[in-house]
Amino acid sequence: MNFASDNVAGASPRVMEALVAANAGSQRAYGADEHTARVEARLKEIFERDLSVFLVATGTAANALALATLCPPWGAVLCHAEAHVAEDECGAPEFFTGGAKLVGFPGRLGKLTAEEIAAHLAAPTGRPPHQVIPSALSLTQASEAGTVYTLDEIATLADIARRHGLGVHMDGARFANALVRLGVSPADMTWRAGVDVLSFGATKNGCLAAEAVIVFDRDKAAHMAQRRKRGGHLLSKGRLLGAQLDAYLADGHWLDLAARANAAADRLAAGLARLGCRIALPVEANEIFVFLPQAMDEELRAAGALYHPWVTSSLPEGVAAGEGEVLVRLVTAFDTAEAAVDRFLAIAGGQAAA
Amino acid sequence: MNFASDNVAGASPRVMEALVAANAGSQRAYGADEHTARVEARLKEIFERDLSVFLVATGTAANALALATLCPPWGAVLCHAEAHVAEDECGAPEFFTGGAKLVGFPGRLGKLTAEEIAAHLAAPTGRPPHQVIPSALSLTQASEAGTVYTLDEIATLADIARRHGLGVHMDGARFANALVRLGVSPADMTWRAGVDVLSFGATKNGCLAAEAVIVFDRDKAAHMAQRRKRGGHLLSKGRLLGAQLDAYLADGHWLDLAARANAAADRLAAGLARLGCRIALPVEANEIFVFLPQAMDEELRAAGALYHPWVTSSLPEGVAAGEGEVLVRLVTAFDTAEAAVDRFLAIAGGQAAA
Amino acid sequence: MNFASDNVAGASPRVMEALVAANAGSQRAYGADEHTARVEARLKEIFERDLSVFLVATGTAANALALATLCPPWGAVLCHAEAHVAEDECGAPEFFTGGAKLVGFPGRLGKLTAEEIAAHLAAPTGRPPHQVIPSALSLTQASEAGTVYTLDEIATLADIARRHGLGVHMDGARFANALVRLGVSPADMTWRAGVDVLSFGATKNGCLAAEAVIVFDRDKAAHMAQRRKRGGHLLSKGRLLGAQLDAYLADGHWLDLAARANAAADRLAAGLARLGCRIALPVEANEIFVFLPQAMDEELRAAGALYHPWVTSSLPEGVAAGEGEVLVRLVTAFDTAEAAVDRFLAIAGGQAAA
Amino acid sequence: MNFASDNVAGASPRVMEALVAANAGSQRAYGADEHTARVEARLKEIFERDLSVFLVATGTAANALALATLCPPWGAVLCHAEAHVAEDECGAPEFFTGGAKLVGFPGRLGKLTAEEIAAHLAAPTGRPPHQVIPSALSLTQASEAGTVYTLDEIATLADIARRHGLGVHMDGARFANALVRLGVSPADMTWRAGVDVLSFGATKNGCLAAEAVIVFDRDKAAHMAQRRKRGGHLLSKGRLLGAQLDAYLADGHWLDLAARANAAADRLAAGLARLGCRIALPVEANEIFVFLPQAMDEELRAAGALYHPWVTSSLPEGVAAGEGEVLVRLVTAFDTAEAAVDRFLAIAGGQAAA
Repeated sequence: MNFASDNVAGASPRVMEALVAANAGSQRAYGADEHTARVEARLKEIFERDLSVFLVATGTAANALALATLCPPWGAVLCHAEAHVAEDECGAPEFFTGGAKLVGFPGRLGKLTAEEIAAHLAAPTGRPPHQVIPSALSLTQASEAGTVYTLDEIATLADIARRHGLGVHMDGARFANALVRLGVSPADMTWRAGVDVLSFGATKNGCLAAEAVIVFDRDKAAHMAQRRKRGGHLLSKGRLLGAQLDAYLADGHWLDLAARANAAADRLAAGLARLGCRIALPVEANEIFVFLPQAMDEELRAAGALYHPWVTSSLPEGVAAGEGEVLVRLVTAFDTAEAAVDRFLAIAGGQAAA
Repeated sequence: MNFASDNVAGASPRVMEALVAANAGSQRAYGADEHTARVEARLKEIFERDLSVFLVATGTAANALALATLCPPWGAVLCHAEAHVAEDECGAPEFFTGGAKLVGFPGRLGKLTAEEIAAHLAAPTGRPPHQVIPSALSLTQASEAGTVYTLDEIATLADIARRHGLGVHMDGARFANALVRLGVSPADMTWRAGVDVLSFGATKNGCLAAEAVIVFDRDKAAHMAQRRKRGGHLLSKGRLLGAQLDAYLADGHWLDLAARANAAADRLAAGLARLGCRIALPVEANEIFVFLPQAMDEELRAAGALYHPWVTSSLPEGVAAGEGEVLVRLVTAFDTAEAAVDRFLAIAGGQAAA
Repeated sequence: MNFASDNVAGASPRVMEALVAANAGSQRAYGADEHTARVEARLKEIFERDLSVFLVATGTAANALALATLCPPWGAVLCHAEAHVAEDECGAPEFFTGGAKLVGFPGRLGKLTAEEIAAHLAAPTGRPPHQVIPSALSLTQASEAGTVYTLDEIATLADIARRHGLGVHMDGARFANALVRLGVSPADMTWRAGVDVLSFGATKNGCLAAEAVIVFDRDKAAHMAQRRKRGGHLLSKGRLLGAQLDAYLADGHWLDLAARANAAADRLAAGLARLGCRIALPVEANEIFVFLPQAMDEELRAAGALYHPWVTSSLPEGVAAGEGEVLVRLVTAFDTAEAAVDRFLAIAGGQAAA
Repeated sequence: MNFASDNVAGASPRVMEALVAANAGSQRAYGADEHTARVEARLKEIFERDLSVFLVATGTAANALALATLCPPWGAVLCHAEAHVAEDECGAPEFFTGGAKLVGFPGRLGKLTAEEIAAHLAAPTGRPPHQVIPSALSLTQASEAGTVYTLDEIATLADIARRHGLGVHMDGARFANALVRLGVSPADMTWRAGVDVLSFGATKNGCLAAEAVIVFDRDKAAHMAQRRKRGGHLLSKGRLLGAQLDAYLADGHWLDLAARANAAADRLAAGLARLGCRIALPVEANEIFVFLPQAMDEELRAAGALYHPWVTSSLPEGVAAGEGEVLVRLVTAFDTAEAAVDRFLAIAGGQAAA
């Protein structure tokens, strides 16, 4: 019953098998291996266009590199106030951009609103060169609040960004979870909606450590290879990343994995709702934010359930923990067993019944 | 017959098996897993002291983080002119230090000499604050020229560094190869000889992607955790690194692997010497720098042998390619088969005989 | 009638005369001149303690250097959302700190409140090393809203900061204006209240280009000389800065200059109030934020008056421009002539009468 | 008898008078003043073309900003090993470029040679992205060794640079001294010979603190305004820089000043040669490197003469201090009195006679 994070799982068996298979024999170093080449081909097919791919081992690296290509040192990245890039990467975007600013917006349910971004960009600013230049918009899909931007929302935000000269980044640490939930194509959820650079996450959804920075317009990827190397993110034995992602992307495996995580989240959320727990935020990916009665929380923890209490400003207006309630985050993964969900619910239910 | 690099191999079977085994079940994220904990314990035992460990996926990251803890932005790192940190990391040390200088010295056979470092540090400098402050000495063990510093050489250099207030870094991308060759203890080759921070390499010697920054004096590791996170080098599923290194270090596996690579290098070098090829530099680890007759070189390449032509300023005085000769680098690894060596020699021999 | 900024004035005659006098003859370069030495002695006397002084030519340089000594790259500077360091320096603090975050708070009347800072620092944060570390608190005295922190307010904020391990910076671009208004000693308004590093402004108050970074505890100034040089802020002919500040500080000249600017602001504010204009923020230094009827605004501009329309979130609750009103900022300086104030009021009055 | 540096002088009387005159009245801030506008116009006329100008207070700032526009963080600046940018700016170019490398060449008589630069750029490098990319060539005119590049030398070097995609920077801290010596036009010595960005020095030659970064091709100056502001180098009272340079450039004043400094150097060098002292390097600007007999050196110092002993690798082959000799640097300035030169020579002569 580990719902602490989708980082507590290992890799999916298929990904692991591929890695074992790829381990044999010699391969060219530094990403010139055949696995990485296959990943690039797969991504072009999946995204229905030419594009530039840079594999890295962490989401923080992917985000920081992506933002650094879009935003100069004297620029600003507009993002949600609770975005991972703003709050949870110890300043990696600032480091890789050479000192840009991340400007956080309160948003709504974890998502930026067109209104706040449009207002910010339309506001009178001082004369150059005293203010930093808004240069990138960063959307997290799915968001830190477990919600998902609709295609329209993405397109509207990207359009505002573009009209003001900003590039658009999507932090897709939970890209597959959002995609499966929306039931749309990867192309529709990204470049067709105006996304320039994507952090394509795979680690949380069935790899051990594998992310891809995807730059849809090759011209905008200039010197990304240098940035990655200089950041220490070019793996010598590139097959490690290539083999994972090759298996991840093959035969829609990545979508199956996300579907499983999402289904587990739905089952868990539905069960908790049935028990009378208030779900705090719409469950649109694989994260559940829910208010638990304190006694239930204690009982669950006593039974060995793992998850984090949560503090967020993204709750719907008027929604807050009641007396004796605690807000917690429950995260499911591709490998979350129905049995674990049901056991969690049974314990919670025993307590709810009590 | 792939002698292009020790990066073209995969992981050793034992390391791979450990990774597969570690993949099952939940583990705490971000390096709080049990594998990583075991690695830390093993390293303390191996190095016979308390120390601080930070696992990362690349040698460039390990080096850049290590140098950043020793050298401020206004500092200088003294290193060999052909050191990996100076020449092959696209400025990663400059990036992580915030713009320090790497000052390269010609050395001798790929190794810094006490004379040149002592002379540099003793030279009159301008008044502060016009010049950067020499802050770190970086030794590569084994060196880029395939040579190995003796314990005395390390201690002498470290002592000079220390007397001038510099910290001492060892780039141990081929640490095990050097260690096995010298037949000394890890402690003797590092902190007992004056090394402060070690980039402990494992990727080239049997892992897929696993390096450790080891800070011998915990006080000097302040904020390394932040530096690593901010550099995007904290893996969420830390077991990937932990499991590899755990198996690598267990039961002297790492030493066996290095011994194999070194033995293959010796066999290859001896064979080539027998064929009349001039070995350009002492073979002290798992790299051979050798002059091949052009015809032999062509024959080998035609037969599918892979290796790189080489340009270096580290050759002994007076040694240079003769007419019709080409300098090449041959690198062996833990998985270099005797058969591959022998086949290589047979082809070379056929040509030599011709 | 130039009320656009206190940057539109030149230097005070006494400062200029001192500069002319100092121009003759040879002086040691790079701040080793006798004028700079005298400035250091004067500041020690004025601040009643030993301290470290670093002269620079701009306030942006002073602030950025000051913050860089207090805040590491993985740190955060807490400041008012409208602080100059956050909004008007094109990311200079981010540049000099190596990519730290500036976290802005709404404050009240342009000033940080103890409540918001205490709440922020008391809030639960994630586990290290995912979040940046709050490292410095930056107060602007006088504030961007023309208000002044009381000694109690400074001490309370500094105390909160100190208890959480933060250093305290004061941006004193208008230090003298605030000091004269409070009628306290420089020591009381700074280090005795808990300030660690002060950007001591003089440019706006009678110099041409002269600021001092004052570090009250010498130990905290380590490597500031290198930071300044490396930032390009060590003047070769240091007498330029030394001579200005020497005259500025002599015989309380700086306090007289500030008193004149403040008096002009008071006269202007009082006159406008008499004309029925609503003063938007307390006039506590040399800046007036006032709502002008549109017609009055137009008349004044037509008559050649210079000043900026203003947008701020620092207005008291409930205070906003009414219909037909425009919020403007009027800044007085040491050389603002009573005649200019009176002429401005006369024109405004004519319009008010109309 | 202060020959320590051309930084020990103040400003020329005409420059100082202009500054006093410019001090009166209001001027727009941040470089929008009329003096700065006039400087821009003058420079366009002097350089016979359209160009972009950015005034700053120090040569270090000018150089660092110039190099940052030409060289990305993953780039290399090729320069003389003893160049000011490499040795005497505490890493300012590294800071402003975001961590680029400065690669020093031994040159000859303080000047880069076409041979060494061509050889470096023609040498085989590793595959991208492992090595930094040579991005800028920086020439110092006059050089640190007091020598001057001929137009042909500049053109040849710039041509090599251009053919390899490098931008060309000229550090003109002693631009006027070199120009007057060559007797050529500013256009010929810069953009017509292939220079892209010039650090136009004025401080050493009659200003107090005034330098200009001149970007000949406006397109290459993109975001220089942001870089300058962010570096803390945009003066609020821009008239300080504008007024100095306006007077400096008017009526060829700058050329007269340089001619005076050069003449003083010639007189001093000729006198010393007559006394039998060996001049170590060609005197082509306002610096003399000369071997003094130890006794003469002591006598001169006893008499109050100020100058620096010198260490350099730029001496002609085979030239070195003999026994009992000391290499010293003597620098003249626009205000060096003939009487001071003659007194110096008289003392030296007395000793020579002895």
